[in-house]
Amino acid sequence: MSFEPDVLQGFVQRYLDTVSSGTADEVAALYAEDATLEDPVGGGEVHIGRKAIAGFYSGMGGTEIKTELLSFRAGGHEAAFAFAITVGGAMRIEPIEVMAFDGDGKITSMKAYWGPQNITQL
Amino acid sequence: MSFEPDVLQGFVQRYLDTVSSGTADEVAALYAEDATLEDPVGGGEVHIGRKAIAGFYSGMGGTEIKTELLSFRAGGHEAAFAFAITVGGAMRIEPIEVMAFDGDGKITSMKAYWGPQNITQL
Repeated sequence: MSFEPDVLQGFVQRYLDTVSSGTADEVAALYAEDATLEDPVGGGEVHIGRKAIAGFYSGMGGTEIKTELLSFRAGGHEAAFAFAITVGGAMRIEPIEVMAFDGDGKITSMKAYWGPQNITQL
Repeated sequence: MSFEPDVLQGFVQRYLDTVSSGTADEVAALYAEDATLEDPVGGGEVHIGRKAIAGFYSGMGGTEIKTELLSFRAGGHEAAFAFAITVGGAMRIEPIEVMAFDGDGKITSMKAYWGPQNITQL
């Protein structure tokens, strides 16, 4: 299974747009039912399943979130990308994320690589 | 198992330096015995084991290789990074790679995300 790079980039852009303007359930709906999410990688916690994933994103509720895709790489049914996320106009984080997608374009795994050194106070 | 970000970045810089100035066997020696390598991701081939990995890097023999780390993110015992590789002064590729390391700092898996759209002819 493989997607054209522009299709993969569309999946990623839709994800970033939904993180910015959607609800936690709308973000979680972009994930497959049995997907896994590790954010940050090495943080010791892997969220498994769409319900747990919705719980993860619900932590952002009520905060103004802006996202910007900085760099994108395609790889078959996977993608790696750098982006900026600005939280409440106060903090900018620049992670590198890796995602895998199923044949329906649902995210089956997400891993976000970032740490304190990738945070800028605004 | 987890490494400090600067330790992980040191592993990655050593890898890029060895790709630039070392032999295929020297690059392969940075990998664990049973490591896996997928470059490019989605290319349909996963190299398994240090011998197969040495074979992969031997394709670069005799060509002048320069590498430059562009962006780095740490994640426990993993790292994600963007870099530039210039081949024979003729071609510049900018992949995003993800690596995992064992407790000895050997690479246990490497995945390189890039495609034709990330190549610049010089």
